[in-house]
Amino acid sequence: MHGEMQTIDQLCVNTLRIMAADMAQRANSGHPGFPMGAAPMGYVLWQRHLLIDPSAPTWPDRDRFILSPGHGSPLQYSLMHIAGFEDVPIEALKAFRQWGSKTPGHPEFGLTAGVEATTGPLGQGAANAVGMAIAERMLAHRFNRPGHEIVDHHTYAIVSDGDMMEGVSAEAASLAGQLGLGKLICLYDANDVTLDGPTSLTFSVEDVGKRYEAYGWHVVFVADGNHDLEGLDRALSEARAETQRPSMIIVKTTIGYGSPNKQGSNASHGAPLGVEELALTKKNLGWDPSWHFHVPEAVRAHIGKGMQRGHEARVAWENRFRAYEKAYPELAEQWKLAWEGALPDDWDVDLPSFSPGEDQPTRNASGKALNAIASRVPWLVGGDADIGSSTQSQIKQGGSFDGVTGAGRNIHFGVREHAMTAIANGMAYHGAVRPLVSTFFTFVDYMRPSIRIAALAHLPILMVFSHDSLAVGEDGPTHQPVEQLASLRLMPNVIVLRPADPNETTEAWRWCMQYSDGPVALVTTRQKVPVIDRAKYAPACGLHRGAYILTDANAPADVVVIATGSEVSLALQAHEQLASEGIAVRVVSMPSWEIFQSQPSSYIEQVLPSDIPRVAVEAGVSFGWERWVKHRRALVTVDQYGSSAPGHVAMEKYGFHVHRVVAAIRQVIAEKKS
Amino acid sequence: MHGEMQTIDQLCVNTLRIMAADMAQRANSGHPGFPMGAAPMGYVLWQRHLLIDPSAPTWPDRDRFILSPGHGSPLQYSLMHIAGFEDVPIEALKAFRQWGSKTPGHPEFGLTAGVEATTGPLGQGAANAVGMAIAERMLAHRFNRPGHEIVDHHTYAIVSDGDMMEGVSAEAASLAGQLGLGKLICLYDANDVTLDGPTSLTFSVEDVGKRYEAYGWHVVFVADGNHDLEGLDRALSEARAETQRPSMIIVKTTIGYGSPNKQGSNASHGAPLGVEELALTKKNLGWDPSWHFHVPEAVRAHIGKGMQRGHEARVAWENRFRAYEKAYPELAEQWKLAWEGALPDDWDVDLPSFSPGEDQPTRNASGKALNAIASRVPWLVGGDADIGSSTQSQIKQGGSFDGVTGAGRNIHFGVREHAMTAIANGMAYHGAVRPLVSTFFTFVDYMRPSIRIAALAHLPILMVFSHDSLAVGEDGPTHQPVEQLASLRLMPNVIVLRPADPNETTEAWRWCMQYSDGPVALVTTRQKVPVIDRAKYAPACGLHRGAYILTDANAPADVVVIATGSEVSLALQAHEQLASEGIAVRVVSMPSWEIFQSQPSSYIEQVLPSDIPRVAVEAGVSFGWERWVKHRRALVTVDQYGSSAPGHVAMEKYGFHVHRVVAAIRQVIAEKKS
Repeated sequence: MHGEMQTIDQLCVNTLRIMAADMAQRANSGHPGFPMGAAPMGYVLWQRHLLIDPSAPTWPDRDRFILSPGHGSPLQYSLMHIAGFEDVPIEALKAFRQWGSKTPGHPEFGLTAGVEATTGPLGQGAANAVGMAIAERMLAHRFNRPGHEIVDHHTYAIVSDGDMMEGVSAEAASLAGQLGLGKLICLYDANDVTLDGPTSLTFSVEDVGKRYEAYGWHVVFVADGNHDLEGLDRALSEARAETQRPSMIIVKTTIGYGSPNKQGSNASHGAPLGVEELALTKKNLGWDPSWHFHVPEAVRAHIGKGMQRGHEARVAWENRFRAYEKAYPELAEQWKLAWEGALPDDWDVDLPSFSPGEDQPTRNASGKALNAIASRVPWLVGGDADIGSSTQSQIKQGGSFDGVTGAGRNIHFGVREHAMTAIANGMAYHGAVRPLVSTFFTFVDYMRPSIRIAALAHLPILMVFSHDSLAVGEDGPTHQPVEQLASLRLMPNVIVLRPADPNETTEAWRWCMQYSDGPVALVTTRQKVPVIDRAKYAPACGLHRGAYILTDANAPADVVVIATGSEVSLALQAHEQLASEGIAVRVVSMPSWEIFQSQPSSYIEQVLPSDIPRVAVEAGVSFGWERWVKHRRALVTVDQYGSSAPGHVAMEKYGFHVHRVVAAIRQVIAEKKS
Repeated sequence: MHGEMQTIDQLCVNTLRIMAADMAQRANSGHPGFPMGAAPMGYVLWQRHLLIDPSAPTWPDRDRFILSPGHGSPLQYSLMHIAGFEDVPIEALKAFRQWGSKTPGHPEFGLTAGVEATTGPLGQGAANAVGMAIAERMLAHRFNRPGHEIVDHHTYAIVSDGDMMEGVSAEAASLAGQLGLGKLICLYDANDVTLDGPTSLTFSVEDVGKRYEAYGWHVVFVADGNHDLEGLDRALSEARAETQRPSMIIVKTTIGYGSPNKQGSNASHGAPLGVEELALTKKNLGWDPSWHFHVPEAVRAHIGKGMQRGHEARVAWENRFRAYEKAYPELAEQWKLAWEGALPDDWDVDLPSFSPGEDQPTRNASGKALNAIASRVPWLVGGDADIGSSTQSQIKQGGSFDGVTGAGRNIHFGVREHAMTAIANGMAYHGAVRPLVSTFFTFVDYMRPSIRIAALAHLPILMVFSHDSLAVGEDGPTHQPVEQLASLRLMPNVIVLRPADPNETTEAWRWCMQYSDGPVALVTTRQKVPVIDRAKYAPACGLHRGAYILTDANAPADVVVIATGSEVSLALQAHEQLASEGIAVRVVSMPSWEIFQSQPSSYIEQVLPSDIPRVAVEAGVSFGWERWVKHRRALVTVDQYGSSAPGHVAMEKYGFHVHRVVAAIRQVIAEKKS
């Protein structure tokens, strides 16, 4: 069968297959097998169902598309190229996986207009899609009015065997079933091959369809995903017709389809086919082996028709939106604010301030600040991993999110920390909502793979972590964070805020709401902390510079004590105690290393003069603190896991008491003199 | 119904219920609800099925028991106390959650003899159980001989709603189904309540039984887990009769059963009942409210009978083992070595050494070292998350693990990194096997919650991570680790090894095999690195001190360059280049911070003299490096995520080239002079 004798459908599919093989060959790197097998589903979805407009890649009501197995990126890039996305000219396909190209090995959100999510680490894309579908429902509920449906789109994800094995996709799928996200449609490329070999090694007993039915999904099968384009089309139509349950379309395909000697085997998974096999593949698929990066004009025209459908949908939407603006001008204004993430003028007028004596856990202060903001910032939405009542992260008047109607601003994620984070990423990708997620600080470890993607993709997810130290107490070492502060601080593009008292907590919220370049972790205490007397000490707005002088001695300081969070009050106690002895102790509250590091060097020198010795106090590991404090003896930290005991006992036993702080101060002063 | 009128079964169950409530009340902290609901299943399992012997808590062929919802620890402690475990006298129950007690908030392996696993962070216990069941099969295959079944025990786990929501349990369950682990039996306490409220918020659509059937499990239901002790007994018998599939017994219970005003509600989940409600509960369950920490003698006697069954099983096993020792003295010797984790005399004779010119990725050298060891150390077993062929972590002659027969030394975990780690922990808890797990370094983030438990519980799991830096190249930032080295180094009790070349890789393996106090991460390159000429430079055995002088100048050093892994050869290039200019550069290879830090201070001073300025070179974040190098200008590191490009291009673009190292050296020398 030669190219010109193929049906237009076949021609389109084979163009995608061969383009993927050409790209990997040119790059001498990549994964041709997946796109060659998944080309039919990609083609049918894009040409017949997906409503997107390459000339307006961020049109708000477009359908969303995620390729969860990001290693299959040639499929997405080829579709984008043929569809006419400006960021993906043929040169970009030829520069696949090269420095500076817009076609990196795995799709990257923000780099290539039209790529909706950064994928690659498996499982997360499937969970991102759940987040997009949630955002769609939330916005539909908030903005749609009878006769004015300005939010009404689907989320489509292609997922792979590897995605189906990852726990994060399982967590997300269970929640999607719980919520009844009817406009979420996944196409599962079941090719039975992974990097190391056939899935019979790892994944052949499980009945994935039955599992998704158990989650409450609508499951459809396509037995021959290599050829049965009408079957794919029917399955997608059925999925769209199902509005009360998410749909999983299980499609049996052959990895590397078309490669005579490598199809159906892991030989086609993780490496180019090789020049000879590529030529044989081209012949086999009716291609001239001398054609490289070839897109027949008929293919462009045909896929273009699918895009025209999307274009028309966008134009129709814009007309609908104009009518909406007239009918509901205030809502239309809110719509714009939501998409910009813009704060209303009065957003912070209800923010609480706390007077000395109103001692309380910073988690409580955080809950009050959150609720003061949430009542005026409707695009802020909450969620937690089953412990919102404990982390104080629930929006009190918000109600529980309902996946069918879209009502409710608190998402009950269940005990599913990783999916919670990946879903929040999906909501952030979608836009017009800002997601808050919450759990105990020690469980941040479960979330880490998705925090990394949020940091990479500059997603402004808000993470509220309570129970932030050994002071958690009786729950013991599994629940007492010690290394988590450092573990987040060292991630590029993650901001960590650990406020010292209720007023710094308010300021932390104020800061968070004005920042949108990446994930932020707000870390709060379980235990009561004193409200620092701001008449006596510096105001809490110092938080906005990351670190600030909370109090100084009358004389030039003999020593600077840097502290964070609940340990700031220990530093103040030491300051008071030593003042009576004539030792001048400056206390610096340092709620955020990252913000402080971004200040001008003059400010940094002002707060931490180079020639004054320093002591640091934090109920966490010392790792990293040498950035601020030269001598390990000057670190009042804890380099081991904790123990089950009442919180104040645990803190005391591990050395977080004023005597140790005073001793460390005396030590550095003695060394300075000697 | 008063105490003395209850059947002995009822009396036992109510003793456990009330003890849990008493413990939480005394501690003024804890989770009484779970143990009150799960007491019947705990009782029936321990009294009628579980084969353990409190007088020999570590008898090798005992059944294993895991309480995955560790917050339900009062149930386990109460059972252990009544059963007669020495570590849990009544005083220990009264000291629940107190400093220094053996009854911490969540069970801790190693602290309390008889506790088989550290649990608390949900989901992991369920996966640990899979690991224990795998270890049982492996040992059965290796050691059992016809008529000599010295390995034949069950693994029982109690799991909760929260465990069922966590992705790690889903990954592990899928693998357990794949492997057909017939001797794994889980009891799922389906009480429909979590910390925040009813599971209708988060977990009511999913049909858990159907999901486990989809995984290939044998599923049994007990509709009334509060009262139907015979039903629980029958279900356990059915589960034990099923030998080809793991069993999930789904038990409907009432959280806080017996508490008149709090049962069935989250009010009983996370806090003591309160004095009044506790008194009402006691009355309701036929107890005298004035009884505190009361165990009726009949209860001790009856549960003691169950323990007697276990004791007799142990005595029978010891007789069997004596016969085995006679029939198979060599195997019996191997058995002992395996339980001790002892190395045979000749264990390292095949370890490879590499000559200059045999340049290769350290992942390849690692694979060779592993295989050289594995052929002589039969208790070392391998496994990987679908990329063993790429990480070079497969035992070549080992075969694929078969969960029914127990044959095979390579576990194909599938794309399930978290479960892989939690399962490895389970294998390590079990004993007599040492598990190796492997994936790309960037995916260590998926594993982190279980690495933390391995560190806490001192489990000697071996983690082999390849693809260790930006040099991964084309796969792009999602696959290029930058912060992972630091993120592991900062975890207490985790050892990180990043060898510089093939010979250091051999030494790293030698070191790992002689260490057993916690998890070790061996981090290797994807790309080729030169074999360092050890005739010219110091021998690779320097690795055993964590850091060592690889080469010195003839003159006293002007500067010390510290490097790790693939960047050591950059440091050597800088050394050579500057030597020709008369600048004396000492190069220190520092494969392991943790090992180096444990050396005497005299050695540390010898390697890194205080008065010589230092430069550090590592293709990772700077965070933490200030421990060794004072000035940020002297850090040749990378504080951002990478980019998709060929590996050598990515390294070059982010500054890992000899010119930058030389420039940093010149800078610190200039500053020293000025």
